[in-house]
Amino acid sequence: MEYIKDPKMIEVRSFEIIQGIIDDIRPGYKFKNEIEEKIIKRCIHTSADFEYLDILKISETAVQKIIDALNNKCTIYTDTNMALSGINKTKLNALGCEYKCLVADEITKELAKEKGITRSMAAVELAMKDEGRKIFVLGNAPTALYKVIEMFDAGYSVDAVVGVPVGFVGAAESKYSLEQTQIPYIVAEGRKGGSNVAAAIVNAILYAM
Amino acid sequence: MEYIKDPKMIEVRSFEIIQGIIDDIRPGYKFKNEIEEKIIKRCIHTSADFEYLDILKISETAVQKIIDALNNKCTIYTDTNMALSGINKTKLNALGCEYKCLVADEITKELAKEKGITRSMAAVELAMKDEGRKIFVLGNAPTALYKVIEMFDAGYSVDAVVGVPVGFVGAAESKYSLEQTQIPYIVAEGRKGGSNVAAAIVNAILYAM
Repeated sequence: MEYIKDPKMIEVRSFEIIQGIIDDIRPGYKFKNEIEEKIIKRCIHTSADFEYLDILKISETAVQKIIDALNNKCTIYTDTNMALSGINKTKLNALGCEYKCLVADEITKELAKEKGITRSMAAVELAMKDEGRKIFVLGNAPTALYKVIEMFDAGYSVDAVVGVPVGFVGAAESKYSLEQTQIPYIVAEGRKGGSNVAAAIVNAILYAM
Repeated sequence: MEYIKDPKMIEVRSFEIIQGIIDDIRPGYKFKNEIEEKIIKRCIHTSADFEYLDILKISETAVQKIIDALNNKCTIYTDTNMALSGINKTKLNALGCEYKCLVADEITKELAKEKGITRSMAAVELAMKDEGRKIFVLGNAPTALYKVIEMFDAGYSVDAVVGVPVGFVGAAESKYSLEQTQIPYIVAEGRKGGSNVAAAIVNAILYAM
């Protein structure tokens, strides 16, 4: 069988096709700026879902805050190992950033049990107690996103949140709540999102740096 | 803030809402059988994308072959660590199944370089040389799916393929090719799919067993 086997060629051609489809289905669609274009196209690349043209929202300072945190050895906290798996570790290592998914740690399980909260929430509580700059990357757990908002409101520091929990119970509401805060955010409004989309957003920024 | 915090309740309620939306947007939609319903709904659960109602296709013997392989200590080979992360390991361990993503192994890199093929293809070549029963779970790499088909045609044994590479270059074509073979398959026709969808399909079957 004959097929394109060069991963770099496949990626370049994929983004050309994505633009071609946008021209076709949404003539005149304008991205606000180059980085928004790169983020949204990478969300489409990972999902083949063009609804991200309409639902992906980036607050004014979010990209600059994320880049600044990444340039200052921040830690990325994900709510699933799947999101963590998808993020480009070579780039993060080169920047000297750390990356963690605390959700399955023993200490997280104990804290969740003790407090009667979800492990996703307990993982946020533990993360917030770490020193240093923080980006939360959440593709799954609305409860984690609510907990980040609660702790930010209580005075804990957060550099930015990639808030794209997918789902039918609390996901849309949690993202709407995030948009009402002063936290720099990137969200997928409504039900859509996911670990793949969360990782794609972070990678789009890493590749643009 | 008040929100549902019990993960089991969230899941039950999510599937009720999914059925409600199906009733609403596709009145009279009928699943072929209970396991197809569980698989498709779990794809929707992980993506919030109801297009899986139309594009998810399961060959006649696929589910039975997968269950049979899982009951006989098969190995699951994924094309990404992301797909591997998303699959329920507790269930696989209880069944005595193994699970591997070979794509980043040194031996895979060497073989890919030596042969001038993608690492995804080299990972399939190495997997095929293992003893025992095999399920391939592919959410990313059309080249891996083509390689599975080539090696099956050359006489290598494959129990089943969950073939849901997402993308714009070769993804749809690779899945169409799989549908033309005698390999038991579960595919997402067209461009959609992904590591999250691949894991969701395996989990739906594991939870139904």
